[in-house]
Amino acid sequence: MPTAAELDAADPLARYLDRFVPSGVAAYLDGNSLGRPLRASTERIAATVAGPWAERLIRSWDEGWIDLPTTLGDDLGRAAIGAAPGQTVVGDSTTVLLYKLVRGGLALAREADAARTEIVLAREDFPTDRYVLEGVAAETGATLTWIEGDPDAERVGAALSDRTALVVLSHVGYRSGAMVDAEAVTALAGDSGALTLWDLSHAAGAVPVELDGWGADLAVGCTYKYLNGGPGSPAFAYVAARHLDRFRQPIQGWLGGADPFEMGQGYRPAVGIRRVLSGTPPILSLQAVRDAIALVEEAGLHRIRAKSIALTEHAIELMDALVPDARLATPRDPARRGGHVTYDHPGFRGIVPALWERGVIPDFRAPDGIRLGLSPLSTSFAEVDAGVRAIAEELAR
Amino acid sequence: MPTAAELDAADPLARYLDRFVPSGVAAYLDGNSLGRPLRASTERIAATVAGPWAERLIRSWDEGWIDLPTTLGDDLGRAAIGAAPGQTVVGDSTTVLLYKLVRGGLALAREADAARTEIVLAREDFPTDRYVLEGVAAETGATLTWIEGDPDAERVGAALSDRTALVVLSHVGYRSGAMVDAEAVTALAGDSGALTLWDLSHAAGAVPVELDGWGADLAVGCTYKYLNGGPGSPAFAYVAARHLDRFRQPIQGWLGGADPFEMGQGYRPAVGIRRVLSGTPPILSLQAVRDAIALVEEAGLHRIRAKSIALTEHAIELMDALVPDARLATPRDPARRGGHVTYDHPGFRGIVPALWERGVIPDFRAPDGIRLGLSPLSTSFAEVDAGVRAIAEELAR
Repeated sequence: MPTAAELDAADPLARYLDRFVPSGVAAYLDGNSLGRPLRASTERIAATVAGPWAERLIRSWDEGWIDLPTTLGDDLGRAAIGAAPGQTVVGDSTTVLLYKLVRGGLALAREADAARTEIVLAREDFPTDRYVLEGVAAETGATLTWIEGDPDAERVGAALSDRTALVVLSHVGYRSGAMVDAEAVTALAGDSGALTLWDLSHAAGAVPVELDGWGADLAVGCTYKYLNGGPGSPAFAYVAARHLDRFRQPIQGWLGGADPFEMGQGYRPAVGIRRVLSGTPPILSLQAVRDAIALVEEAGLHRIRAKSIALTEHAIELMDALVPDARLATPRDPARRGGHVTYDHPGFRGIVPALWERGVIPDFRAPDGIRLGLSPLSTSFAEVDAGVRAIAEELAR
Repeated sequence: MPTAAELDAADPLARYLDRFVPSGVAAYLDGNSLGRPLRASTERIAATVAGPWAERLIRSWDEGWIDLPTTLGDDLGRAAIGAAPGQTVVGDSTTVLLYKLVRGGLALAREADAARTEIVLAREDFPTDRYVLEGVAAETGATLTWIEGDPDAERVGAALSDRTALVVLSHVGYRSGAMVDAEAVTALAGDSGALTLWDLSHAAGAVPVELDGWGADLAVGCTYKYLNGGPGSPAFAYVAARHLDRFRQPIQGWLGGADPFEMGQGYRPAVGIRRVLSGTPPILSLQAVRDAIALVEEAGLHRIRAKSIALTEHAIELMDALVPDARLATPRDPARRGGHVTYDHPGFRGIVPALWERGVIPDFRAPDGIRLGLSPLSTSFAEVDAGVRAIAEELAR
């Protein structure tokens, strides 16, 4: 097994580590929960306050702000999720955008075929995804068809029927890190007449995503993980161009309207992806997303994915060697996992506070998992090494 | 008429002008569209990036971030809107919070009396308010009862019936600046068995608001106007304590749930106001709201209101003297208006670009209004003077 020093020395993306504000900790292993700030974002936020906000004032709305949700969406589409321009928008929280897209997607499916009232979802999905879908089901009369265990094409196939309206899945599971073959599942759902909605929260910026290429219908995702937008930064939504004319979402706000500053009577949705918006875009938060998108594009998603696989391989080799009684909860096949790795061990809950105290920061995931989120552009192999050794030490105490 | 210099010299709040980042413009007269940044906020945002985000990383969620929507809500409740703790939360956009509260309020009203399916609203209200209500009506089967002209107790009284579920009004009108007697309207609605939902966007931070004292049921408002939170900063929502146990909103997200980090099956709403939340709170944007709330509390709302009246009186005296053919669209009685003043004139549309060019920045409101938004803590009488003189000059060209 090559050493961490050898891996870092050979890492073509190592030069990007210095783009981030130094963390001062021994090992930050939770970049898939909260990505670290880029130095450029720190400067951009300060400059936005000093210039466009303090001095240009409301004139800034005409000087780029009003279009930021869609220009940033196009940038994100190109750099990270394989979406041609005009299909992606940034704003709101992931939960709110998910709600809008589920409601909108359900309406599209029912419009095509009124008998389609079922939503397929996964028991292991992130809480917000399940909760939103439970809420929408209760208010619309849709029914939920649950997939047990990590979703895959076979389980999705078994869940589909001619009543399926929508398949809502995470591309990469928040706990296990398992990655679904989204292209195969999208095709399967499409063949059966259902729409797909992908949650890319744990995928965007870490693994290649090809929404247009897959033929996906809808997608959402968060920007504060591998896209380093900062705590609670705005989420993104994708609606495939072929659906945009008919797509409607329930939160009708002025900035999703056809002519916001006309301020006229009667809501008419904007032409195109802007109809997904509702309220005034959160400009300061949007600014912080710009730099990571640019960095992902500069580094290239395929090189990012290669480093991500190398980081997770290194973590698995070390964990297997140094903490042999922990159980890998993530697929061992790198092609079937995203950028994070989870191990379960009954002793993990007890040691996380001590790890955090010593500046080794993984996440804990109930009931007994340590999740190592290895953000490719900001994580060194040395950090993985220091982190796993600290876990082994604390467990041995 | 006292001169602007005399008024500024006698202004007990003049010392707060220097708390704001200098704008560099001759007259900023749109603080009710976008409030100016406080120097303290600039520092707080930079410090949040450098410390809690870059160095404390995910540990910051346990070090105050997770409670920020409710602690900030309590601060706002105390400083600006007359709400006892536990009833106010900050997060999402005004539009999204309005949607949640309208849906939740409608459900409460129907639960008490299934025949209550009407919503009273105003034709002159801000577009988002009308659009949200039109959307909710379409999806829930509620009907809309429109008030024409500026709403007042008499017009609300005429619109109420035993089928009214909800009265949704702005406390201060976005265009005219007319202020409703919210206490009287709340009592009137309550007597007839309807709930009230106040949009405080153009009120909070400029005029005294007493939600608890009025007996209000629900309220929303924005923080980027008189609360200086920055472009698109998160909004706030208030649900009166007596409704919280039964209040439900449709966007069920993990951070509105009873135990977010349990990540269990089945959404259970959090106890208390936190159930209004959905997704991860936007921390950077929330930080910028803190300083203006503290400043409002330090200066005191009644002193702020006194200066606000003096500023609008000065603007009206000057406009009447220097632009006599413009028509005041705002109530002349200071007790019936908020912190901004609108004049209509067919020549106004043409001169706004020239005004902006010379650093005199009012807002234009279709079809022919110039709106002077005089944020009391950041606006001097000299600015009002310079602004009105520039309007007169440009119109005379």
